[in-house]
This record gives sequence, C-alpha cells and structure tokens, in this order.
Amino acid sequence: MGKLLLGLLIVLLAVQASEGRVRRHKWDVKYEYKSPDCYEKLVITVNGQSPGPTIRAEQGDTVIVELKNSLGTENVAVHWHGIRQIGTPWSDGVEGVTQCPILPGDTFIYKFVVDRPGTYMYHAHYGMQREAGLYGLIQVAVPKGTSEPFSYDADHSIVLSDWYHKSAYQQAAGLSSIPFVWVGEPQSLLIQGRGRYNCSLVASLKNAAGTGSICNTTNPQCSPHVTIVVPGKTYRLRIASVTSLSALSFEIEGHNMTIVEADGHYVDPFVVQRLFIYSGETYSVLIKADQDPTRNYWMGTNVVGRKPATPTGAAILNYYPNHPKRSPPNMAPAGPLWNDTAPRVNQSRAIKAHPGYVVPPPQRSVRVITMLNTQNRVNGHTKWGVNNFSFVLPHTPYLIALKEKYVKHAFNPTPAPDSYSPADYDIFRPPPNPNASLSDSIYRLEFGSVVDVILQNANSLTANNSETHPWHLHGHDFWVLGFGHGVYNPVKDSSKLNLVNPIMKNTVPLFPYGWTAIRFRADNPGVWFFHCHIEPHLYMGMGVVFEEGVEKVGRLPSSIMGCGQTKGHRSP
Amino acid sequence: MGKLLLGLLIVLLAVQASEGRVRRHKWDVKYEYKSPDCYEKLVITVNGQSPGPTIRAEQGDTVIVELKNSLGTENVAVHWHGIRQIGTPWSDGVEGVTQCPILPGDTFIYKFVVDRPGTYMYHAHYGMQREAGLYGLIQVAVPKGTSEPFSYDADHSIVLSDWYHKSAYQQAAGLSSIPFVWVGEPQSLLIQGRGRYNCSLVASLKNAAGTGSICNTTNPQCSPHVTIVVPGKTYRLRIASVTSLSALSFEIEGHNMTIVEADGHYVDPFVVQRLFIYSGETYSVLIKADQDPTRNYWMGTNVVGRKPATPTGAAILNYYPNHPKRSPPNMAPAGPLWNDTAPRVNQSRAIKAHPGYVVPPPQRSVRVITMLNTQNRVNGHTKWGVNNFSFVLPHTPYLIALKEKYVKHAFNPTPAPDSYSPADYDIFRPPPNPNASLSDSIYRLEFGSVVDVILQNANSLTANNSETHPWHLHGHDFWVLGFGHGVYNPVKDSSKLNLVNPIMKNTVPLFPYGWTAIRFRADNPGVWFFHCHIEPHLYMGMGVVFEEGVEKVGRLPSSIMGCGQTKGHRSP
Repeated sequence: MGKLLLGLLIVLLAVQASEGRVRRHKWDVKYEYKSPDCYEKLVITVNGQSPGPTIRAEQGDTVIVELKNSLGTENVAVHWHGIRQIGTPWSDGVEGVTQCPILPGDTFIYKFVVDRPGTYMYHAHYGMQREAGLYGLIQVAVPKGTSEPFSYDADHSIVLSDWYHKSAYQQAAGLSSIPFVWVGEPQSLLIQGRGRYNCSLVASLKNAAGTGSICNTTNPQCSPHVTIVVPGKTYRLRIASVTSLSALSFEIEGHNMTIVEADGHYVDPFVVQRLFIYSGETYSVLIKADQDPTRNYWMGTNVVGRKPATPTGAAILNYYPNHPKRSPPNMAPAGPLWNDTAPRVNQSRAIKAHPGYVVPPPQRSVRVITMLNTQNRVNGHTKWGVNNFSFVLPHTPYLIALKEKYVKHAFNPTPAPDSYSPADYDIFRPPPNPNASLSDSIYRLEFGSVVDVILQNANSLTANNSETHPWHLHGHDFWVLGFGHGVYNPVKDSSKLNLVNPIMKNTVPLFPYGWTAIRFRADNPGVWFFHCHIEPHLYMGMGVVFEEGVEKVGRLPSSIMGCGQTKGHRSP
Repeated sequence: MGKLLLGLLIVLLAVQASEGRVRRHKWDVKYEYKSPDCYEKLVITVNGQSPGPTIRAEQGDTVIVELKNSLGTENVAVHWHGIRQIGTPWSDGVEGVTQCPILPGDTFIYKFVVDRPGTYMYHAHYGMQREAGLYGLIQVAVPKGTSEPFSYDADHSIVLSDWYHKSAYQQAAGLSSIPFVWVGEPQSLLIQGRGRYNCSLVASLKNAAGTGSICNTTNPQCSPHVTIVVPGKTYRLRIASVTSLSALSFEIEGHNMTIVEADGHYVDPFVVQRLFIYSGETYSVLIKADQDPTRNYWMGTNVVGRKPATPTGAAILNYYPNHPKRSPPNMAPAGPLWNDTAPRVNQSRAIKAHPGYVVPPPQRSVRVITMLNTQNRVNGHTKWGVNNFSFVLPHTPYLIALKEKYVKHAFNPTPAPDSYSPADYDIFRPPPNPNASLSDSIYRLEFGSVVDVILQNANSLTANNSETHPWHLHGHDFWVLGFGHGVYNPVKDSSKLNLVNPIMKNTVPLFPYGWTAIRFRADNPGVWFFHCHIEPHLYMGMGVVFEEGVEKVGRLPSSIMGCGQTKGHRSP
C-alpha cells in the first residue's frame, strides 16, 4: 500500500514536471490617477500599476490570470502577445475575434500554456485601451538545466511606450470624426512606465485634487526608471515596445548592445549602438558594464520614422555603487535622424536565426496573399485598409461564429481578396481614388498549409508620405523572408528571399514604400488577427483575420460568449 | 365582403385609438466633441445631440426606442424618468436593477406606454453617464379634445443641467479614490444644452483639432438658447432639471411664473418670481409675454443650496420681432442667496394637487420606513448611505435575480433596515462613528400595500453642513405628505401630514437638517430604485431598492440579460 502510494506520488510529480507549473495571477483592472510623466491623468492599471505586473514563468508552465474588470462602465479584453495559444484560441484575448468583451464587475479567466521561452508582452485588445496604460511583460525562462546560446549574469527588463495626455476616448472620438481629428505626436516616451514632461508648459492647470499643478516633476511616480548594474558584469536586457504610434530607437550611452533574441527566438548575435524597435516587438540585448564605473549612464529612446515632436525618453543605467538617482553628466542621447530609413531596414535585414536554432522554413508556399497597405476614405472618414478594404469587427466574435452552428450570417462570407492590381496602382503616389469599403470578410486558410504574405506599402493620402507599419500575427510565429523597396516583383524578388536561416517573429515592420515577405504554416486551429500594431491604425481598419482548422478547435468556454448572437445563449 | 372589410377597418381603427399610437425612435448613442458652454469636450450624444431629441407622444401611446450603443468600449442604459412602466418593469433602464448593460454595438429596444400626460425626462442610468450629456425630455400630451386646467397659446421646453469640463470618468475615479477627490462645483449651468464659460480662463489650451483654443465664445454651439414669444401671448414653459449635482433657481427677468404642473401632476396654481428645481424634477409654468415688447429678457438659472462657484446660466426670452440674438440690456439675474433655505422649503410646501385633480391618498399606511441620510466612510472611502448602509449594485440585476429561479444568491437576502435609532443619533452633528457597511439588501413590500417613507436628513461629515437631496422613486408617483425641520417625530409630526390634497410626484427634495414624508402604494409589479438624484451621491451609495409583486411580472425579455449569472443563459 505504501509502495502504491509512493508510485502514485512519483507519477503525479512526473506529470507535474512534464506539464509545468501553474502560475496563477489575480488582477484588478481599473482607472486610477497616475503621473507617469509627471502629468496627472487617468490610467488603466493592473493591481494599481502601469505597466502591469510582469508575468514570470518557465517554458511549459500554465499561466492563469483571473481578470476582474473594475473599469466601471467600460469593458475590457487582454491579449497575450507572442503566446501562440495552441489548443486555447479562446484565450487570445481579442474582443470581436476570439471573445466577447469582459463586462464591468465580471471576472474572466485566461488560461494558457507558455510553450516557448522568451520575452513576450500582454496588452488590452479592445478599443484603444492599450494606449490608456494596460500592458506589461511576459518572461518565459528556459527550463532549469537548459542552456541558452549566450550567457549573462543577470536579467533586466524594460517596457517602452509612448504617452498621450489626452484620453484614449478623446483620440478615438477624433479618429471617428469628419473631418478626421488627429491627436498628434505623443507628449512623452516612457521607459518602464516613467517619463518626464516639461511641466512648465502646463503650469496653470490644476491637478484633480485641486491641491497643486497637474504636472509635478517632484512626483516620485515620474522619477526615471533605474537599471542597476555591477561593473564588469554582463546583463540581458529584455526590451518590449507597446507604443500606440511610435517607432523607436533605443540606446545606452557608451554601451554596445548585442542582439540575441527577437520575439522569443534566438538571433545570430550582432552588435548595435542603437536598437530600432517597433510596437509589438520584443528584443533581448546583452550589455556589459564595461565603462567608467564612477558615473551613471543614460538609456534613451527617441521617435524615428515620423517627424518627432516628443522629447527623448530617458532612464538611468546605474553603475553600482553610484547613487541610483545621480544624473549622468551629459544630455540624454538625442537619437538618429528620424527620416533616415536605411539603418532601420538594415537592422531588420540583419536579424537572422541563431545558427544553432534555425527552424528551416518550408521551401514552398501554396498560397501567396499580397496585402496593399493604403490610407483611404470611407464615407468621409479617414481609414486604413488592405487591398482597398478597411476592416471592421463583426458583432459576434469570429471564433464563436465559425465554431457554433447556431450563429448565422455573423460576417460577410465573401473571401477577403488575395491581392490588388499592381499594374493599376502607383505606390509612390497618393491614391487617385482613395475611397475604400468597410469589410468584415476574412481569409480562410487550408489547415496545415504554408502561406506567404507580401505586405506592400504605398503612399498615404499625403503626397511624399509613406509610414512604417509593424504587422503582428496572432497564434503564430512566421519566418521573415525578406524586405525590399518599391513594388514586390513575384518573379525577381521571390528568388532573393531568405529560405536558409530566416528569423521567426510575430511582429515585423513594413518600411515606407517597401515590401516585407513572411511565411507561416497555418497549423494552429483557431481564428487569428493579423494587423498593424499601431493602435490608431488598427482602430481605423488596418487588419485582417485568418481562419484555419476551426473545426479542430475544442469546445469553446461559455465565458467568451455573451455578445452579438451569443447574448442569452448558453454554449451547447 | 365590402361591409366585412369596412367593419374590420373600423374595429382596427378603434383598437388603434384606444391603445394609442406607436412612436418609434432610432437612436445612435456615441461620444462626440461638442462645445455646449464654448469649451470643447467629449459629450455623449443621441443622434448627434445633447440634450437628445425630445420624445413627443400622446397619453396612451406606445414609445419604442431602438437604442444603438456606439460608445466604442463603454456600455449604456437609459431610464425613462417619470414613466411608471406598468407591465414593463424591464424597460425602466436601470443597469443592475432592471437590466444588464447594453454592450457596444448592441441595439436594445425600450418599449413602454406613456399612460399619463405631462412632462418627463430620460437620462442614462449607468455609472455617471448622465453627467456626460445623455439626457432629454419626454412630453406627453393629453388626448385631443381633452382639456387641461389651464390654457396657453404655445408650449416651450427647457432642460437645465450643470456641466463639468472633466469627464465623468475623471469624476468617478476621484470619488473612488482614497483620499476622496472631489471634482468641485460645475464649470457652467446649461439651459437647453447651452452655456457660456469664461474662455479667458483657459486661453492657452488648444482644441482637439489643434486649430485654435479649446474654448471659443463664437462657436454657434454655445450661443444662448432662445425662446421666442409673441407679445401678449401666454406660454407653457416645461422645465426639467437633469443636473448632476446642483439645486437650481430659475427666473425670467420681469416675468411672473405660474406653477401649473409638477412631475406630470397638475398643481393648484400659484405665482412665483423664482422657481426652485432639483435634479429629477419637472415643472410647467405659465408665463405671459406682458412686458415691454421692444426688448428681450434674460432667463437665468443659479445654484442654490451649495456655495456657488458657477456663474449664472442664461438664455434669451425673445420678444418677437426683436432680433433673437439681441442681448437684454441688463445683466442676467444673479439669483437668490444660496443658503437661504426657507423660500425653497416654502415652495415645496406650497405645491398641492390641483383641486380638480386631487388623487386622495390612503389615510393609513401599513409600513413606515425611516431612512436616515448620512455621509459615511467605508474602508477609507467616502460614501453616502441610508440607515448606515451604503448601497452597491449586485452583479445580476435584481429584476432578473428575483424573477428567474435559476439565479441563486445574487444579493444579500437580509432585509434592508426599516429605521435607525433616533434616540442614539444627533442629526445636527457629524456622525461620531462615520463607518458604514456596503450592502445590496433591498426592501420587499407587500403587493398593493401602502408604504410611508420618512426621509431624515442629518449633518454630513463636515461640521455645520447638511445637503439637499432630491429623492427619486422609479415606477411610482408618491404623495408628498409633508416637510419638516429637525428629527421627524412619529407622534407629533404624523398628525400634521397633508392627507387632503397632497401633490403626487416622483422626485422630492429632502432639505438640510429636515425630513420629508411621502406615501405610495406598492402596486406596480417590479423592482424599483429609490435614490438621491445627485449623480455622485448615487454613485457613492445613496439609494435603496423596493420589490413588490415580482411574481406578477410577465416573462422577462432575454434582451435585458447577459450579465452576472445570466451571462450565457437563455431566458427559460
């Protein structure tokens, strides 16, 4: 009997070990007054923090987040960016695609396995709530005893964000207005939720309590973020960008950075002085504390790709035992020329899979979807679109609409178009006819098939302007096959794609007037958003949806229902 | 055959006449930038307007409002204030009491009969959305051929509101903070959605488009409201107050006003120079255009009952054919002394039922519920409460919880307390122990029984301060039996109550340090909110709920479900 119990215990422990541990989190999501850049505004917080608490886990662990919505009158949904949700597509957290919104007062349980080590993030995926502050990091460690292709003494992390003093509501109302009202460039860049606005610009405005100015540089909430290093040691710095709008450069005075990880994949290491990072991307860089140890150094981030109107975001690299608040002697780094695209393209091109970790891409795809990215107009509204369709979410989430037979006509079943007419379109000029249509059509992919997407950039509605769009794919990592300038030529350019050692990523930039080619295997049963990660661009329709193998998806939890045609229904 | 058809037609027409017509409205509710007092902010609009469109109907008509929620990420619910919802308690529009919130993208259908003529209003009843601008008037005419106890040449209406430049979100976050952050007095008073802020106070702030100042006195949206009159004619002016906070006085330079209607009931007419009106009240006054016809006159409204920090709200009474925009020669009326309570109490006492329309009250009640109104603290939060309980809404609306057997333990079944201990409580001092408890307990009333409520005021947490609270009862009109100063004495005061010709109302003020006695018959099957109509006070817990005859309520529409325990359920 004792032996039997012991045997059972051993079996249980083995199961525990192979299935990973459970990492349980209880979150309370609400609006609170915070002053991340010294300027007080309402921020969506998780357990009182923005960025929210970092989720730490080990490969194979199960993460459970019990999310209580305390926003009062506003719903919420949270996406686990970079987590593929294999077997749990209902936990992807995209309102309108994979779930109904979480009502005020409701507690929703997200449960998923983190099956790959690396640096990921989470953020709101409903309206423009990411911009309001709902985001944070996910760090998945390799199992104990597993080595990584680089070594370091300690691990630090940083979330980069851009910050508006207007509310996400105000920005959304402007985007929906005729004429279109643009909120403009962000007021601040935040490093780990901390920035510094020039309070003298708003000296006359009162704070909510009426006890002082709305902007107070002595508020401890906006003292710069400090990363402590010991001279001589090597650090892994995990960097994630959750910006609403901005492409960023990031640098550390006097320190090289060796890029070793991108979106959870090991990179063939290379050294940069500046890291370019787009919204939705994560990187790990190694830094060595090998500079003059008697002082501190600025870590700085600046806007690139758009004419900046936002000052440098700065944090302190603190060489122990210098005082952590001691300002470095120089100004924070001002960043590169904002409109010098070449170094940015070069960095993206330079990122290849680490030789020991190459996942060879299939040599052929069965389907090529070309996506012309354009700025458009629909009934007087300014929009963004793909192949002349601007995306709108249906009222019943796709995952439920496609899986549950009782849902009818939830969206337009006409397939979204696989291409545009390159011969008829000059990507270097504003569209002669900018009018597009709203659509909730999707791409249905053959399960297990290999699909190429050619993202094709174009001129916006403004002459001589083409923007950088970071595209993010849910539920997959894709191979980054190549980048080019001008119109993608299927004959000439396809032969130059990297089918040897491409990096896998979940987010990739599309450069001005350029193209980006990616490949992925449609082997994750579910419905997956693919969209520009610039929050206002997505809000204005810059996204598409892929379905693959939805018939293989397990029984949907009833907790994701309750809206559209699933209002008042119980999952059968 | 022709005769049969004719007969059928006559029957159909008769049914039509006896059942009233159907008044159908399609509403789109969304956030838009508006400048009601010249200061641009986000406003919740109905079909682009705030106040929303007036609902006009005739007694016995059926009103159908198809409300589309286009708020983006925020839910909504709309209450039809003063409409008793006999047989349709699910259309009362109170989130948490009679329905689940209406999700973004959803269209909810409110359908109810307006069974009594008079002046009513509608407004959001979710979070603090009323303050954000979602309100308007309901005017129910007497059937053609029916006379009213007064005559007039034409009918005009006016909605009074107070206006904050901060969002309802900001106010709510402050109310929920520790320490409590109070938004302060409103920036403007609006007459029919128009006011005038002193733009020089915010000259440096930009509008959303960045094209000019956030405050622009030449914006046509904030040109004063104009009521046109023809000299010599008599007008019925319907006045409703939907203020968030403020008690108001209203006057028209040089013109007497004869009060003829209150909350849909005919008043024994009397003349006032100033009308005092509390949030949730409606009045009709008659005015005669009998002054110097060569000029215009100010209509003015001012804050009373709180030390005002808000300028006079002004509109123009335009004597035709003077130019409607011609300013009257004097300053707008500055209003009475804010802290002179006696004239306000006197007006409330003077309002009696019109002799020809007295609804005699039952001479006895079977139950007296005394409600001590106090400001409290709960776990460091500042709250308002009744008999030491601060009200919180449950997660499943009461109407559904009480009617649908599958809902269990949706709220605390312990009855809410019928009284407090007058002997142990000094209403003239701040509470020695201000701590209260949160509660979602309710009052269950015997169906058809006659119930008295004695509202008993007290000192707030601040010494020498007692506020005016306008209490509003859903689903009923009540008889206003009396007002008094100090502690209500059941022996002495009950004998002085007016059981002869009390006015019936749905909203009644409770004056500082005073009591107000009302009586109603619990004969409307449903669940009904009774609460202070000051929006922040209700947000802070100043309300109770009555249930009566819920077993007689018809089958609940599934459209009201979808939250709490009804998420994923279909109405059986």
